[in-house]
Amino acid sequence: LLSTVSALGERALIARITNRLHVPDWVIVGPGDDAAAIEPERGTVDVLTTDAQVEGVHFDHRFMPPDAIGHRALAVNLSDLAAMGARPRAALLSLVLPDDLEVSVLDGVLDGMLRVADAHRVAIIGGNISRSPGPLMIDVTAIGSARRRHLMARGGARSGDGVYVTGTIGDGRAGLQALRTGGDPKSTGACEQRFLYPEPRVRAGMLLARNRAATACMDLSDGLADGVRQVAEASRVGMVIDAASLPITEAARSWFESQRHDPVEAAISGGDDYELLFTAKQSNNARFRGVAKLIRGLPITKIGVVTKEPRLVVRYPEGDRELAGGFEHFR
Amino acid sequence: LLSTVSALGERALIARITNRLHVPDWVIVGPGDDAAAIEPERGTVDVLTTDAQVEGVHFDHRFMPPDAIGHRALAVNLSDLAAMGARPRAALLSLVLPDDLEVSVLDGVLDGMLRVADAHRVAIIGGNISRSPGPLMIDVTAIGSARRRHLMARGGARSGDGVYVTGTIGDGRAGLQALRTGGDPKSTGACEQRFLYPEPRVRAGMLLARNRAATACMDLSDGLADGVRQVAEASRVGMVIDAASLPITEAARSWFESQRHDPVEAAISGGDDYELLFTAKQSNNARFRGVAKLIRGLPITKIGVVTKEPRLVVRYPEGDRELAGGFEHFR
Repeated sequence: LLSTVSALGERALIARITNRLHVPDWVIVGPGDDAAAIEPERGTVDVLTTDAQVEGVHFDHRFMPPDAIGHRALAVNLSDLAAMGARPRAALLSLVLPDDLEVSVLDGVLDGMLRVADAHRVAIIGGNISRSPGPLMIDVTAIGSARRRHLMARGGARSGDGVYVTGTIGDGRAGLQALRTGGDPKSTGACEQRFLYPEPRVRAGMLLARNRAATACMDLSDGLADGVRQVAEASRVGMVIDAASLPITEAARSWFESQRHDPVEAAISGGDDYELLFTAKQSNNARFRGVAKLIRGLPITKIGVVTKEPRLVVRYPEGDRELAGGFEHFR
Repeated sequence: LLSTVSALGERALIARITNRLHVPDWVIVGPGDDAAAIEPERGTVDVLTTDAQVEGVHFDHRFMPPDAIGHRALAVNLSDLAAMGARPRAALLSLVLPDDLEVSVLDGVLDGMLRVADAHRVAIIGGNISRSPGPLMIDVTAIGSARRRHLMARGGARSGDGVYVTGTIGDGRAGLQALRTGGDPKSTGACEQRFLYPEPRVRAGMLLARNRAATACMDLSDGLADGVRQVAEASRVGMVIDAASLPITEAARSWFESQRHDPVEAAISGGDDYELLFTAKQSNNARFRGVAKLIRGLPITKIGVVTKEPRLVVRYPEGDRELAGGFEHFR
């Protein structure tokens, strides 16, 4: 009967959401007041980030189930906290909803978001609901904590450092392309799943930070090319990336080949991987192996070196090429 | 030449914004990294809130200058912090921008927002920019601090307490109506200014909290009727509001009369006042007068009493009436 959000009304909507939230004891004022209040964690600094998911820009109902939309809305924010080495604690949820949005879609969005929240022990402590005259928009602000001396930033890479990525790159972009075009009948769906349900590298980020194994770190939301450029610019260094070393799955490689794209170039320029790109002193190998051992199951691959000369180069067997631009919104 | 945000491009847009921001020394990592990091204030808890301004729902370019849009986007969040008694410290800015948005409009939005930020010493520490296939959307998350024992919430009103508001009510709604209909030629524009540039009651909120003069508090974003209902429900009490005592300006009164609306009913049900509604023990008069004295220039008016019986009543000379519903989005 009350199948759209406008038929349900604002108060019932808010109650429907807040009834599903667990509020841990360090939350002093939870959802339902003018603002939320939380106890800071002793000896740490607050780490804060915000990221919006917009219908028609970041997601499309035609090929994304509601729970994937909710999963991604929180996961991309936790990925940003992971890149700083922070432990995620809480999130605020700002929903901008079209009047005719089905309540079942909203429930699905929450299903996906709350699974990610539970997996990473993130409390949703408040938020806001507004009407949208256009697309559905989900804006999440995530708050985490880190010891000040453990914080990782983009500006710390030094000449001679190694360049590393967690996991594999290219699957996100391959998955998005496959979903958009109706998919690859021979595909196992691995890339599609990677795009729909990215796993923020929270544990890897915290371990890298606590062991002070990384000199710089960022997450690969907009692709490896963008990440390499951002870390290099912030650190005022260059990088040489070894094309042959890039960790690209067989699934992504075969998808890109089926589309007549060069797999290495597609994986470098593609986005939505939500892996961590970081640099580390090569002399710090013991520290670094300790981290790699603790992050069982998640490969860490050395993909290049930091150079003094501020050029960005991809080294192919045939020779060096300038790094292609990463993904830029508004271009 | 580069007059729209899509022509300018994402990096140039971000640089254009971050170049205007002042970053105080307690900000450890400011704009431009994966997340921001701030030093918490010793002995306080973090207070967090988020609120979105959506084109076509909360604002309209036809009658709102860009700086008012930016002013309101931050001010409504500071108003929420004020209601908790928190001191605002920082904000994150999430912008969802149509491709064809004029850069000059964005500059104007920032002008208004940064004036509010400067006035209240709020640092804009980070944010996000996304494309919008529809309306312009500005989502702000504000972070403040308060001593735990000073926090005000909605649920503390007790039978016998007085009910108070800061400033005047009704101007916001009168101003919005006047702007929408092309205005009142006899008007001085006072109500329009109140709607366009609401002043968050940050100082009043902090003083009420520090002096522990209020038992409950919330801000009047959605009107007095909504505020009375929310505080009463959260506190499980009733309220009797005295119609004759309501602080309604001559400007608002004359606007509502020109529209053949009952001024008292219009002021009660109208929104966008961003005043504080609070309850206080009547025996606490000394404490309370101390606060009133410190908030020079801002009147505080007693408008009713808290009752044990959970009814919401407006007392008119002709007799009692049930309180009309407040503004609800999606209805």
